[in-house]
Amino acid sequence: MVNKVADEPQLLSKKAGCNTHGQDSSYFLGWEEYEKNPYHPTTNPGGIIQMGLAENQLSFDLVEEWLEKNPDALGLRRGAASVFRELALFQDYHGLPAFKNTDARDFAQALARFMSEQRDFRVAFDPSNIVLTAGATSANEALMFCLADQGDAFLIPTPYYPGFDRDLKWRTGAEIVPVHCTSANGFRIYSGTAFSEPGFVSVLEVLAARAPLAADYTLDDRVHVVYSLSKDLGLPGFRVGAIYSSNPAVVSAATKMSSFGLVSSQTQYLLAALLGDKDFTRRYLAENKRRIKERHDQLVDGLKEIGIACLESNAGLFCWVNMSHLMHARSFEGEMTLWKKVVFDVGLNISPGSSCHCSEPGWFRVCFANMSAKTLDVAMQRLREFVQTCSFKAAPAALRRAAGPARSMSCPLAMNMKWALRLTPGFADRKAER
Amino acid sequence: MVNKVADEPQLLSKKAGCNTHGQDSSYFLGWEEYEKNPYHPTTNPGGIIQMGLAENQLSFDLVEEWLEKNPDALGLRRGAASVFRELALFQDYHGLPAFKNTDARDFAQALARFMSEQRDFRVAFDPSNIVLTAGATSANEALMFCLADQGDAFLIPTPYYPGFDRDLKWRTGAEIVPVHCTSANGFRIYSGTAFSEPGFVSVLEVLAARAPLAADYTLDDRVHVVYSLSKDLGLPGFRVGAIYSSNPAVVSAATKMSSFGLVSSQTQYLLAALLGDKDFTRRYLAENKRRIKERHDQLVDGLKEIGIACLESNAGLFCWVNMSHLMHARSFEGEMTLWKKVVFDVGLNISPGSSCHCSEPGWFRVCFANMSAKTLDVAMQRLREFVQTCSFKAAPAALRRAAGPARSMSCPLAMNMKWALRLTPGFADRKAER
Repeated sequence: MVNKVADEPQLLSKKAGCNTHGQDSSYFLGWEEYEKNPYHPTTNPGGIIQMGLAENQLSFDLVEEWLEKNPDALGLRRGAASVFRELALFQDYHGLPAFKNTDARDFAQALARFMSEQRDFRVAFDPSNIVLTAGATSANEALMFCLADQGDAFLIPTPYYPGFDRDLKWRTGAEIVPVHCTSANGFRIYSGTAFSEPGFVSVLEVLAARAPLAADYTLDDRVHVVYSLSKDLGLPGFRVGAIYSSNPAVVSAATKMSSFGLVSSQTQYLLAALLGDKDFTRRYLAENKRRIKERHDQLVDGLKEIGIACLESNAGLFCWVNMSHLMHARSFEGEMTLWKKVVFDVGLNISPGSSCHCSEPGWFRVCFANMSAKTLDVAMQRLREFVQTCSFKAAPAALRRAAGPARSMSCPLAMNMKWALRLTPGFADRKAER
Repeated sequence: MVNKVADEPQLLSKKAGCNTHGQDSSYFLGWEEYEKNPYHPTTNPGGIIQMGLAENQLSFDLVEEWLEKNPDALGLRRGAASVFRELALFQDYHGLPAFKNTDARDFAQALARFMSEQRDFRVAFDPSNIVLTAGATSANEALMFCLADQGDAFLIPTPYYPGFDRDLKWRTGAEIVPVHCTSANGFRIYSGTAFSEPGFVSVLEVLAARAPLAADYTLDDRVHVVYSLSKDLGLPGFRVGAIYSSNPAVVSAATKMSSFGLVSSQTQYLLAALLGDKDFTRRYLAENKRRIKERHDQLVDGLKEIGIACLESNAGLFCWVNMSHLMHARSFEGEMTLWKKVVFDVGLNISPGSSCHCSEPGWFRVCFANMSAKTLDVAMQRLREFVQTCSFKAAPAALRRAAGPARSMSCPLAMNMKWALRLTPGFADRKAER
């Protein structure tokens, strides 16, 4: 078969044949290894623990409890009546007047309110500026198609989500120019699912505050937000994302493009009811943050005990962890050698900084919200044993120097050559990550 | 606001600013008019009747009956247990081994079997060659990205679905070269939701039959099927489509691209159960075809009574109708004048052939499966009154000559310059049509 293909013209596009989608990165290779040998406490206790997945499994019980109390949302019912017919035909192209009063239309309203609630209601979102998409992956690409011509470039601070090479560049023909941040570079204008102070400050909030003074009064038209429910509600499987923009041309073009990745009306119906329940969203957001902080602290404290430092963070579902003192050599080759040891010998799938275009060797992205507290304990224990047997580790003092002052390395702001492009808090976090 | 924008650089991509998406076509303009003044038998009996929408509303009761009997499918339950957590996280990138035994994976199997059943089991589909997408719109675009580089062209017989300009060309940079069919050109190799003889013959079936003889044994690798449940099950709102290909490179590239439009896992769970019920699918397919034929005959017979001929068809949710004898002039200008009369004065939204790139003026696409039999009666009555008052209509004899022998004008085969590209039966029909 291979020979047969080799003898013939491929008859495929260059895109299909090339690997600029970036899925050959070690980030995805680690995932593949995990899939081959996934950890399970009883059936496969020696398997690889998935710490490369910024997924939020901490608050499912809250959603399940809500589903039990609200069976109509899942059952596609409104009281005694089925809404199946309505939903079967509904396709949200945002703004067709006949649909404005349906439940599915209400989903954009409920989502706008939820986005505002996450910002403690300091910013309001107009539902008519929301374009729904099948996850943030779809939203990101559509936004690139709206903003960039082939060869145009976007500035994105490193380390960034490895999937961006696929999502932003592959089909659009746009380029990414990485802006290399260092671990000592305390970049913090914006941050993600904030679980501790300082909280999250939206760029929209900044714009609103400076509006009375500003000469560049059109900046509002140049700021676009990508959002998804994949991380905040832990629902990547449901494929719900959105572009928010005050620029009518972007909303118009993105709306047409949204036909390439619409959200299932069945899912919209369920989530319109869920997000429309204000008591639920208030309780969920508070409890979810509390649990993320608790799990975050478990990871950071556990690592500290074995002489491994994390960059300080106040949001998101992962930490940037400095393991440079465990490397043979302070180079990206050393980083890859260590990474392979951690994946294959220690049995933890973590993501090397180099896969996220990090400019300093020795940093690893370690996720903590996609597993139980017990599994995280197992992971810490494995790492402890590994560190103890590690012959070439540097002294704790050297470690502290190498790590520098603990600062955030999460840089969710992307800016293209022409204008500021606001990508949501913890942008990488909010991506569908396969 | 308009002035402000005009004074400034738009800072958008050329794609966002141009209108090559084709949504300014009269096809979509007719839709907009319908949305402004939609017919309702009691609340708006003078409104426009939507006959521009190839939607299947004829068999919802069968699905609803099934839902009543199978509450677990909607309720995300497997017996006593909730599968919510499983589905919340599940993202189908097709083929990751850990997911192969889940219900969502079963969806590809159920879909493959259903596609085979539609072809009376004369063709088998391998589930691992299926790439799921959020509707056929998403599948079509992804397939174009896989097959075509910018500037490459696809041959598509006319009349074709106006949305193709958006779906196949807009973001991909590919071109469509229309192959102009005439009404006298009895093109019938393939056909859609076949409700009468000759039934549907799949190109895969043709390939299988000729395989033992063929020197071009790699043709299998060059035939790709796009499928969706939007028409056959009447579920455009649920966004379920697929690419089927025996070419591993296409499956691989399309799988990566499917991240831009994945199917909601909630919807996959429901439909895996629905399509997995063989008694249901057998009964549904037979009854649905019977109802489509009945409704088709109602339209054709009604039009015949008032001297209007249709092209013969044995599949699909619309007819091509010859109204050239009602035009002032046998030109596309005459067609547009008549079309506006029919939309604004008669109150029927039908689609002019010119919006589908038809090369002969006077043909209109008239949909019949998206309304009740009573509403179709109202539409026929309105048309009857219009024809009676029409001063410039040609004699029935002239009409018959103009219409030519009744033949199919549905041409669902597209072929690019390099290879044969199989687009499914009633390709246009199976599109998400907004």
